[in-house]
Amino acid sequence: MSSNPADLAVIGGGQLARMMQQAAIGLGVRIRLLAEGPDVSAAQVIPDRRVGDYTDLDDLRAVVTGVPVVTFDHEHVPPEHLRTLQAEGHACRPGPDALLFAQDKGAMRVRLGELGVPCPRNTPITSLADLEAFGFPAVVKTTRGGYDGKGVWVVRSAAEADEAFAAGRALLAEELVDFRRELSALVARSPSGEVVAYPVVESRQRDGVCAEVVAPAPDLDPALDAEGRAMAERIATELDVTGMLAVELFETTDGRLLVNELAMRPHNTGHWTIDGAHTSQFENHLRAVLDLPLGSTEPRSPWSVMVNILGGAVEDLEAQRANVLAAEPDINVHLYGKSVKAGRKVGHVTAYGDDLDDVLSRARRAAALFTDGVTHD
Amino acid sequence: MSSNPADLAVIGGGQLARMMQQAAIGLGVRIRLLAEGPDVSAAQVIPDRRVGDYTDLDDLRAVVTGVPVVTFDHEHVPPEHLRTLQAEGHACRPGPDALLFAQDKGAMRVRLGELGVPCPRNTPITSLADLEAFGFPAVVKTTRGGYDGKGVWVVRSAAEADEAFAAGRALLAEELVDFRRELSALVARSPSGEVVAYPVVESRQRDGVCAEVVAPAPDLDPALDAEGRAMAERIATELDVTGMLAVELFETTDGRLLVNELAMRPHNTGHWTIDGAHTSQFENHLRAVLDLPLGSTEPRSPWSVMVNILGGAVEDLEAQRANVLAAEPDINVHLYGKSVKAGRKVGHVTAYGDDLDDVLSRARRAAALFTDGVTHD
Repeated sequence: MSSNPADLAVIGGGQLARMMQQAAIGLGVRIRLLAEGPDVSAAQVIPDRRVGDYTDLDDLRAVVTGVPVVTFDHEHVPPEHLRTLQAEGHACRPGPDALLFAQDKGAMRVRLGELGVPCPRNTPITSLADLEAFGFPAVVKTTRGGYDGKGVWVVRSAAEADEAFAAGRALLAEELVDFRRELSALVARSPSGEVVAYPVVESRQRDGVCAEVVAPAPDLDPALDAEGRAMAERIATELDVTGMLAVELFETTDGRLLVNELAMRPHNTGHWTIDGAHTSQFENHLRAVLDLPLGSTEPRSPWSVMVNILGGAVEDLEAQRANVLAAEPDINVHLYGKSVKAGRKVGHVTAYGDDLDDVLSRARRAAALFTDGVTHD
Repeated sequence: MSSNPADLAVIGGGQLARMMQQAAIGLGVRIRLLAEGPDVSAAQVIPDRRVGDYTDLDDLRAVVTGVPVVTFDHEHVPPEHLRTLQAEGHACRPGPDALLFAQDKGAMRVRLGELGVPCPRNTPITSLADLEAFGFPAVVKTTRGGYDGKGVWVVRSAAEADEAFAAGRALLAEELVDFRRELSALVARSPSGEVVAYPVVESRQRDGVCAEVVAPAPDLDPALDAEGRAMAERIATELDVTGMLAVELFETTDGRLLVNELAMRPHNTGHWTIDGAHTSQFENHLRAVLDLPLGSTEPRSPWSVMVNILGGAVEDLEAQRANVLAAEPDINVHLYGKSVKAGRKVGHVTAYGDDLDDVLSRARRAAALFTDGVTHD
């Protein structure tokens, strides 16, 4: 409909692309979207969109025509296609050489090992003998395609390893880390090399899925906060990441940080920044990939809490919205325009303030009302 | 493209509708837009849109088909068309009976007079004799169609009245108020009757156009803040306004508040709320017109300042963006996707913090860089 060129192509129409659009509206950035379907989350809010398959080079070419910069809602675009787009003059941010380390956990472990970044002890395995040599208990992971706890098995004996090997995919064995909690360090990095780091946050998982995030991580040793930020800044720089990088961390019971996973895009553990930081991770992602100066990552309140709305008993989130806003006036609602399926991330709520217990209670009650229709406390 | 019905039709595709979309994305509200052209400000960011003429009943009908609630980017839709839409089952918020008082200053003065709301002394005039009987100096206004200083004349003698009468339109003569400054009181009101008021802000005009807003109004007597809020709440209730109501006020040199103008939509004097308040005026407008519970109007910082970007020497705002963000990292940018014309509102910047002088300086420098390419201080 518009004759104006887009500034940026976003591949993938999930909630991350949707929330990029909120930031793009303020910045005056025009996004062209490659969406998986005509009414996926981001396609509902980005007019300049095409429906297509991100694994199909022709679909990718069609959407990036005339668009100088390409970025992503997810890390699953085939790297060979990204190399073709680069050769045809489009800047892919992050580029395929960086993305590899978010796509392939084996490559990530090797590279972080070379850099001396602390990781759980790990080794690639191709057989039960390899796993037995590594020792039990072990965390066995597919090197590619896992997310939200899928493709990850805690294996305590040879008998428990069948499912992992049944898939017939490349596997990694990792030490089962004795951790106190999970943390997340987020940075934005621009092609010019500017890097900004958000405070390290605590990420609380349930069944392998992020349930809630507390920013900043409560009672975190300031030295560990600084170490986490520095680690993420160094990884972003060494791996030449552009845009947001999330470094998921274990805080071990003996007070060390170990890298669990990398994500090269805005991340669930950064959603609190929309309401809770001077510059949201979505705005900083856009600023980074467009090589604009990056914005302040300072929190706006002593405490911010994000709780995911996971698909549950409530089928009509929009109908439930009035009940939630009435019950919890001091929260912020973010719905993704997705149909409800059990456990699916369909939205999140945030709360902020001076008292962590109060902030946490408000956000949890609101999310529970959206998920189950009742509060749990 | 989407088969999902919209929740809300918005008539008019300016920056107010554009900023409504930012709030709609979070709330999961689907907007259908009637836009003046395919690439106007809001049409760039709202997929479900039709191009049409808001004075044409068929165009209005086409856009509201299947949509339960209708709201507005501006107050210029003919009231007879709104009555037709109402008769056909659509809730117009605000409705034509309320909108009349934003469309017609004569009707507004009569109604506020009946309510005992303090206004400048005023009278309708049809001749120079009427104006001479009212006395000089006088402010002469067209009752309809004026905005941003257009349709308003300060007349100090009969000889100066020619231009006002030349237009041949219905006129109002008003007392030239001896005022200290201009203030603005914003409230949101839902059909259920819930009303929330933002703190009274100071609005600074240049050549009849809002140049900057300071929230809350500096050194405002708390009694006047309370009076301004109460006045806006009462006007919203008595006039049955739904959505946002802006009451532009004079603070007289002898410490009284007088109503200058009414606007029934999100308002330039409320743009600071996007970054500066718990709930933005755009979100509260959507919540109000959809009859959802309203959000907190509390400021998030001691001071917030909004400075308009008015079209000036800089022709390419998007190209200038990098320079502004580099020079002023602690501001928020809001560009409207509009082409630059002299004096046109093409964006705004906000800043917030503890020190008003600092906040004001940052916002002014950033806006000056966008407007003229240089700072003035």
